[in-house]
Amino acid sequence: MKKIVVFGAGLSATYLISYLEQNAADYKWDLFIADKDITLAKSKCKLDATRCVEIDINNNKAVTDLIHGSALVVSMLPAFLHIKIAQECLDQKINLATASYLSEELKELHEQVKASELVFLNECGLDPGIDHLSAMKLLDGIRENGGKITEFESFTGGLIAPDCVDNPWEYKFTWNPRNVVLAGSGSAVKFIHNGKYKFIPYHRIFRRTEEVDIDGYGKFEGYANRDSLKYRETYGLDDVKTMYRGTFRRRGFSKAWNCFVQLGATDDSYILPYSKGMSHRQFINTFLSYHPTDSVELKLKSYLGIVQDDIYLWEKLESTGIFSNELIGLNKDATPAQILQHILEKKWSLKESDRDMIVMWHKVTYEQNGTSKKIESSLVCEGEDRKHTAMAKTVGLPLAIACKQILEGKVNERGCILPTSPELYVPILEELEYFGVVFKETEPV
Amino acid sequence: MKKIVVFGAGLSATYLISYLEQNAADYKWDLFIADKDITLAKSKCKLDATRCVEIDINNNKAVTDLIHGSALVVSMLPAFLHIKIAQECLDQKINLATASYLSEELKELHEQVKASELVFLNECGLDPGIDHLSAMKLLDGIRENGGKITEFESFTGGLIAPDCVDNPWEYKFTWNPRNVVLAGSGSAVKFIHNGKYKFIPYHRIFRRTEEVDIDGYGKFEGYANRDSLKYRETYGLDDVKTMYRGTFRRRGFSKAWNCFVQLGATDDSYILPYSKGMSHRQFINTFLSYHPTDSVELKLKSYLGIVQDDIYLWEKLESTGIFSNELIGLNKDATPAQILQHILEKKWSLKESDRDMIVMWHKVTYEQNGTSKKIESSLVCEGEDRKHTAMAKTVGLPLAIACKQILEGKVNERGCILPTSPELYVPILEELEYFGVVFKETEPV
Repeated sequence: MKKIVVFGAGLSATYLISYLEQNAADYKWDLFIADKDITLAKSKCKLDATRCVEIDINNNKAVTDLIHGSALVVSMLPAFLHIKIAQECLDQKINLATASYLSEELKELHEQVKASELVFLNECGLDPGIDHLSAMKLLDGIRENGGKITEFESFTGGLIAPDCVDNPWEYKFTWNPRNVVLAGSGSAVKFIHNGKYKFIPYHRIFRRTEEVDIDGYGKFEGYANRDSLKYRETYGLDDVKTMYRGTFRRRGFSKAWNCFVQLGATDDSYILPYSKGMSHRQFINTFLSYHPTDSVELKLKSYLGIVQDDIYLWEKLESTGIFSNELIGLNKDATPAQILQHILEKKWSLKESDRDMIVMWHKVTYEQNGTSKKIESSLVCEGEDRKHTAMAKTVGLPLAIACKQILEGKVNERGCILPTSPELYVPILEELEYFGVVFKETEPV
Repeated sequence: MKKIVVFGAGLSATYLISYLEQNAADYKWDLFIADKDITLAKSKCKLDATRCVEIDINNNKAVTDLIHGSALVVSMLPAFLHIKIAQECLDQKINLATASYLSEELKELHEQVKASELVFLNECGLDPGIDHLSAMKLLDGIRENGGKITEFESFTGGLIAPDCVDNPWEYKFTWNPRNVVLAGSGSAVKFIHNGKYKFIPYHRIFRRTEEVDIDGYGKFEGYANRDSLKYRETYGLDDVKTMYRGTFRRRGFSKAWNCFVQLGATDDSYILPYSKGMSHRQFINTFLSYHPTDSVELKLKSYLGIVQDDIYLWEKLESTGIFSNELIGLNKDATPAQILQHILEKKWSLKESDRDMIVMWHKVTYEQNGTSKKIESSLVCEGEDRKHTAMAKTVGLPLAIACKQILEGKVNERGCILPTSPELYVPILEELEYFGVVFKETEPV
């Protein structure tokens, strides 16, 4: 029996746990699901054989004891906690898998992990995760056929399924709302376009969008992710002339979201005094000039240059309830970003019947036998319901399949790695197809 | 004889040293001027009696020995070095004076300084400095006459004298250019207007300006400084309905400067790759979309929504040389802000004959005997030449006069203090008038 310990039984662990349980008997896995909330852990498990454990992650001895004798540890905890688990795994010589970005702290363990002949797999969820798997398969395929890659573009969006759209943004929070509100903030966006380095400051990101048509799903718009440049190395594309990664939203989203950015309502750097007792309307007025009689609506239009007949933009803003006299309702003063999130959650939370949708799209331009060619690859995956989301599925399954590969000794790479080699992307993508996660390739004219 | 040690003999120390030398004989001061550049120190001193000392501020023993036996130490060093000097002064029980903002580190020494019966005077230059002195005199005067202050606005600008204007911005760097390029960045601007808290994100600051007419000098525009709120406490204005502090420029400056902000050219958070070898034009193009044929000029106009006939804005941008093919000429890759500063310094540095100008303006609204009243107070001070600037004068003289007051035992407050009490502002403002630094009060109808 091989012991597996999964830390964290939240939304993103649903499909992972279910996959591991389904395969436990065949592969002789002894499964432990640890969470600070034992009821949550139990609700995710169907087999009697699975051991649910209540854990306080700050209790070092409990963590040490729990993972003792494991063949693999999976951390679905918040990313900043991985390093603690990783250190413990290194000490006890246990493999580790996470869906999170490979942190600088973890990178520093690389040589030690390698020397211990262990594998610490990172970025094996959706984005990061399936984006790496599918991009590498596409890129390696072109390279094997003698193609020289010149441009790479990639977008991913976590959205709402078309038949569940009930607001003018065609958007709801299907994942961590805080990340959505803070998207793009922090530092300038960096990418390369036709050999020229390009930089966009945060307050312009939502004005520099691209439009992409996905067969059967219509048009999406993409805004740039923070750092596209670092993926050149990850994907072996050091000489590529265009490297651009971004996030998909439905058309018109970015122009409207830009209003919040322009106001300063996405700022997370200071606590707004007296915000605890404010209404939505007072919150918005905080960013506008004082006037004894002018309305908040008119001041906002004038300040942001919104013309009278831009009804598509205006109905979006109005639909969020930002002009309402309703109290925000937080129990203490908060940052503008926290307040905006709270206001939007009132309208943008998933209803019981709502289903989410993941859209991923890559475009590669390459030269082969002297001619320039293009290939596009796209994935659309719809969720089943509010608990069985496409997001949970596409985050959990790749990691779960990777776990099987590691436990079966089919992963030879050692150290702190990403799933960019064929030994990982081939079997994972193949098995994902069985779950309906299928990429469609087209060669646009 | 009372020993005085001045650390730093740069531009801001010119008038200070000169004042101390002029009064040294009368008041029996033994003057030591310490700088890492002994030639610079010597160039600032006229008296044989003044001792010029070469000092390495990192040499603890040298610093300890130098200040030994002093009655007062003056630090004109970069602000981050004050704490080191302050600690040493505390150990040796010596008073200290600086023109810089009272830092959090220094604030923590307050109780110890007080217990040692010492005075560590801060913020006694121009801005901060003369702004505090003149504001407090104005505010205390109103309060003494039974007025209740409801609004306080204050602007200061370091500009170029009207007859030295030779570019469409009507601006040159008369002080630290880096501070000018980074002005307003870092966090949202905070102020209160008619009882409402107001917040402006960095990328909107230069679009929310106020216009002020200064008698005999025409119109200026002011943009908001970072945090006006903290001055409520400093000035004893906790119940004030409007508190707004800002920076003066000539009209039209902010609209044009906003173009650099919008582009992201004032970003200091990352190094621009390959910028060492770039031309001005390539630098600007870095922030614009790629296009095989469109000009940088047209892309910029379209991106920032600059209309064809906005000639006042356009001539400003063109005059900076940003569209030129000239190489930037830095010897290594730099941040956008560093590069922009370097480009602007080519055009905005003071010529030999250039004279600078300081403009300061306060407006106070108050209630007295049931009626609302207004008072404005303004200062204009022009420099003599590139070395004897109004900035150096208005930074150095208030501090120098404060030093005299401290040495003569006329300052009774103890601890880490600001010059907000009459024992400081009355004598300093009085003596400043003798040097031509005179506020004009008017009561607008």
